[in-house]
Amino acid sequence: MNSKVTRRNFFKTATVATGAAALAAPALAQGGTELKMLTCWPKNFPGLGTSAERFAKRVSDASEGKLRIKVYGAGEIVAPFEVLDAVAAGAGDLTHDTPYYWFGKDPAFVYFAVVPFGLTADEHFTWLKFGGGQELWDELSAAHGVKPLANLNTGAQMGGWFKNPIESAADLQGLRVRYPGLGGQMLSRLGATPVNIPGGELFTALQSGTIDGLEWIAPWNDLAFGFHRAAKHYYYPGFHEMGHTLSSHVNADVWAGLSDTERAIMQDAADAEYVTSLAEYNARNLDALNTLVNDHEVQLHEWPSDIVQEMQRIAPEVLAESAAKSPMATKVHESWIAFRDNQRQWGEIGDYANARLKQG
Amino acid sequence: MNSKVTRRNFFKTATVATGAAALAAPALAQGGTELKMLTCWPKNFPGLGTSAERFAKRVSDASEGKLRIKVYGAGEIVAPFEVLDAVAAGAGDLTHDTPYYWFGKDPAFVYFAVVPFGLTADEHFTWLKFGGGQELWDELSAAHGVKPLANLNTGAQMGGWFKNPIESAADLQGLRVRYPGLGGQMLSRLGATPVNIPGGELFTALQSGTIDGLEWIAPWNDLAFGFHRAAKHYYYPGFHEMGHTLSSHVNADVWAGLSDTERAIMQDAADAEYVTSLAEYNARNLDALNTLVNDHEVQLHEWPSDIVQEMQRIAPEVLAESAAKSPMATKVHESWIAFRDNQRQWGEIGDYANARLKQG
Repeated sequence: MNSKVTRRNFFKTATVATGAAALAAPALAQGGTELKMLTCWPKNFPGLGTSAERFAKRVSDASEGKLRIKVYGAGEIVAPFEVLDAVAAGAGDLTHDTPYYWFGKDPAFVYFAVVPFGLTADEHFTWLKFGGGQELWDELSAAHGVKPLANLNTGAQMGGWFKNPIESAADLQGLRVRYPGLGGQMLSRLGATPVNIPGGELFTALQSGTIDGLEWIAPWNDLAFGFHRAAKHYYYPGFHEMGHTLSSHVNADVWAGLSDTERAIMQDAADAEYVTSLAEYNARNLDALNTLVNDHEVQLHEWPSDIVQEMQRIAPEVLAESAAKSPMATKVHESWIAFRDNQRQWGEIGDYANARLKQG
Repeated sequence: MNSKVTRRNFFKTATVATGAAALAAPALAQGGTELKMLTCWPKNFPGLGTSAERFAKRVSDASEGKLRIKVYGAGEIVAPFEVLDAVAAGAGDLTHDTPYYWFGKDPAFVYFAVVPFGLTADEHFTWLKFGGGQELWDELSAAHGVKPLANLNTGAQMGGWFKNPIESAADLQGLRVRYPGLGGQMLSRLGATPVNIPGGELFTALQSGTIDGLEWIAPWNDLAFGFHRAAKHYYYPGFHEMGHTLSSHVNADVWAGLSDTERAIMQDAADAEYVTSLAEYNARNLDALNTLVNDHEVQLHEWPSDIVQEMQRIAPEVLAESAAKSPMATKVHESWIAFRDNQRQWGEIGDYANARLKQG
């Protein structure tokens, strides 16, 4: 932090601001406030990085430039998997991350990102706003010194890239795969070994054979990463991530120090960017998929049915195991399951019934 | 308008402000600007009215109360179907409406609301933001003196209420039904007579037998209107409205007179409210549906398959006919069709494929 004066004027100069509280105060400059965003992605990376920049621009534009967010790429200040700790300690003001990277801190975090056979982007937002989800996420995050905002959703993802074709569950046996979150735990039940690697290191790991397969996001992002140069077999649907929510976790003292107006601007920008990022993924995925298949000899496969069936059987077990690992995870799990069941019943009358007609 | 001084100080007092340009200037009060919103719905009506109020609150909160929107219910200043003309003429600053109410001005408007067998809420937002939809809507609206913002989506709707059961297409013959937009035109091909009636008059029309059936929105809204007291047969899915976008059309001079910051605040609030309103409908529909079925003896029916098949056959014909009615409608139609086809292909890999797994 380079702040000379804290927002609330707790400290008059940087020379007396030495503790964590001082570090947590955002920089004041040009008559306003500048917040330091530590992201888990390469700067301006299509989708994740560009959405972070657009979120920052929304906040600046709506505040007449008085509240600004400066976006730092992965590794510029801290390594991608360290951004939450760094922000909680005040070395940054907010993250741009996915909640499931913080699974090790509390398994409850994964529900706020994505759960296998879980919620669509719309359903997840509904849980946050009208199903008690945001309150639970606030409670969980407060214990880690941060306030969470959902400000990105990738929409439906792909099942990922494999060097060799996967024709049945037996073909997963012994593979090393980058599959974070509960998706990886499901694959491990079928004999694969999940490993966690930051996005920026994935291509090299796949190309060098350190891993045999990986999932990242969807065609638009995956094309930009160039995975098709290291593997040719591309699977769908991404039943492990039907809509992945990403987030900014804001240092709790920084959040508390913002004015009501600034918090309203941040919240509107987050809500707006959630649906705008979703739209951008959905807009760009098909063209990218066509490029992959037509120009790069990628083979698009639907997951073998035995794998889908096994996964549908395994998913509730993996989820229940994870939920038992902390009191907060148990509490969040109960809310999430009740909400999911409610939305599925409505989906049968609404969106899912309509999807059937579109297929017809 | 009660403005004493216009925003741009074109006029010093109300006494000299007699023309349309003067009427189009929003009121200045309490050191800020107050915009007059003319809605098509009863004030604070669940869903439509409450979302309008929430949009207004977002704008006020993000502007530190300097940009305020005062919401007027249907009939308070002008009748519901007159709000667009009133705003264009400066008798209000912005509407809260559905674009398809303005079908008579130009059939192109209907694409910005909802089209039978059309787009989901997410797909529509994607068209607006990344498929050229907003630019076309801006062009269409400019010709009518307004700037459009999408700030509400109902999500999947229901097929509506009928006094008598509809067991096959033959049962629609001779019925008088309130089915606005292209949905009504489709029903007329099967022998029904569509009539357009504002929301606030619907219950009386159904109860008195002026109409035999109607569609409104979905269980949460429909329960509040009390349609179950006048009809007991409730159909799904709402293939005519898979996701209905509602809007504010802002007087063009008022929009141009806002600062960049104020426009950014309005746009973020609109985007945020689009996804939040959608979430609220999806959150509340199932409980309302359960209340209707369990407490009010409503019979829930899936549409007979012959009607669905007929509608799927008729829909492209009705759409093509409508598209031919104006040059703008033709232009919008071409954009919309190309976008829809793109999204359906991606949907088969993404959301629709996932919906099949949820049904499994």
